[in-house]
Amino acid sequence: MAPLPKHLTGDQASIDEFINQFDVFLFDCDGVLWSGDHLFPGTVETLELLRSKGKKTVFVTNNSTKSRADYLKKLTSMGIPSVEEEIFASAYSSAIYISRILKLPAPKNKVFIIGEAGIETELKSEGIEFLGGTDPALRRDITPEDYTNIANGSMLDENVGIVLAGLDFHINYLKLALGYQYLARGAKFLATNTDSTLPSAKTFFPGAGSISIPLVNMTGQQPLSTGKPSQAMMDAIEGKFQFDRKKACMIGDRLDTDIKFGLEGKLGGTLAVLTGVSKKEQWEVDDAPVRPHYYVDKLSDLMG
Amino acid sequence: MAPLPKHLTGDQASIDEFINQFDVFLFDCDGVLWSGDHLFPGTVETLELLRSKGKKTVFVTNNSTKSRADYLKKLTSMGIPSVEEEIFASAYSSAIYISRILKLPAPKNKVFIIGEAGIETELKSEGIEFLGGTDPALRRDITPEDYTNIANGSMLDENVGIVLAGLDFHINYLKLALGYQYLARGAKFLATNTDSTLPSAKTFFPGAGSISIPLVNMTGQQPLSTGKPSQAMMDAIEGKFQFDRKKACMIGDRLDTDIKFGLEGKLGGTLAVLTGVSKKEQWEVDDAPVRPHYYVDKLSDLMG
Repeated sequence: MAPLPKHLTGDQASIDEFINQFDVFLFDCDGVLWSGDHLFPGTVETLELLRSKGKKTVFVTNNSTKSRADYLKKLTSMGIPSVEEEIFASAYSSAIYISRILKLPAPKNKVFIIGEAGIETELKSEGIEFLGGTDPALRRDITPEDYTNIANGSMLDENVGIVLAGLDFHINYLKLALGYQYLARGAKFLATNTDSTLPSAKTFFPGAGSISIPLVNMTGQQPLSTGKPSQAMMDAIEGKFQFDRKKACMIGDRLDTDIKFGLEGKLGGTLAVLTGVSKKEQWEVDDAPVRPHYYVDKLSDLMG
Repeated sequence: MAPLPKHLTGDQASIDEFINQFDVFLFDCDGVLWSGDHLFPGTVETLELLRSKGKKTVFVTNNSTKSRADYLKKLTSMGIPSVEEEIFASAYSSAIYISRILKLPAPKNKVFIIGEAGIETELKSEGIEFLGGTDPALRRDITPEDYTNIANGSMLDENVGIVLAGLDFHINYLKLALGYQYLARGAKFLATNTDSTLPSAKTFFPGAGSISIPLVNMTGQQPLSTGKPSQAMMDAIEGKFQFDRKKACMIGDRLDTDIKFGLEGKLGGTLAVLTGVSKKEQWEVDDAPVRPHYYVDKLSDLMG
């Protein structure tokens, strides 16, 4: 059992010691930097402080509907100065995984996407061929002919080797039927992330994991996730930024995704903030499955 | 461990003994009476034989998209003489369960349907108020305003007390978001049935259980199913037909739904046919979880 986390808020000596031991800070965004449309006071100044001390800042998000360029726009619109190179989103993580780790031999390496434009943009950036996704031809009801043509394969692309599922606001029966059929014929099953819910407007909406779960239910297969807390994402981040894990710290609000992600990745540190989903009571219980190394009441407490 | 089933095919004395001990025969349909659009030879004659001996025949189906009247049309179109009173489909089973067992007090007893017209017809037949279902207003993309209006409740009917999910060929993000929100606010969670797949065109398509599974994933709650093998369906059938379970036999092709349904319902008999999904090798293994009492190669073997 890990020890209880150290509370850094108001303890300047510990804050200095904390910051000094790391070169890289990985940030979850919603619940850490902002909540919904509300930027937390001091977020920009805290990031500036860390950067002024030569620290690398990386924004790590499971949002699969946005490409890195889209996500940069979001950071900018929230008033957070950033560059695309600092952004690591789950759609990009999938693209990296497919092109640099999975490396299926052509021609049977096309990706059938269940998801939005962000995934398409990132697959394109890695030169990966795909179909599905935002294709308007799939945004329709299933027809009697579709059953026959899916079953006999005439509606399928025989070069699909991967089904990649992320958050899809246009999910429908036809896409699920096609996704299942590719999996039944041997395609590999990937997910940008498997969050069951998407927090929005102070409640929850279906998350990427609730879009892919019908395929899990039909096939009995779990997808390989390239989002937090999957270590496929950590491996991809390390591959891109080439840092010493012992000198990196994950900052997040969710124990079961962010903090677990940092702990399983054997980073030098994990810092929880209390401005999002998880509460300190969750790690204070005796049998807490996940405990961060440190916590602050809010991110800007790091400014001392 | 139950003993191996008795093979009735070609054994006239055992067939006679089998038929004589039951008053009621519950039939699964697809895989027993027909396969897809192909009526098995001898199906009609076997049903006639049983009826001529004074046996009650009941058709028990998990098909939730059809009302009993719709299903009667299907039986008729397949060439099988029947009457609506012999049909017990999962949508009807849900309606019976809601009106006669659950009996939520008005006004908070409306049903939010994820599913097709068959469910609506059966709820109407029991005088149950509902929304959702085939409402064209829900067959659209989610909008930014929807997030706000779902979260603040202005898009919700405060009298919804039940979410009922069945097979929905028009499933979309908006319906899942609404279904989740009703459940999060305390609605009871029912499913017509939880079959993960729908067999069609010699392959599989998403079944009712793969439509409700996102809500299971989001809430951590399992729905109460009113389809095979759930005993809620058996209780409803018994309530309607008032028979002695010891004098009833379930006939089906699937061990994990039909045969399990009969065994858990403590019917006097279960008969497997080999013209559908399950194979005899499945019950012949030492640790077979489900074994029927009897089996025939095909239903018409009962004609001797």
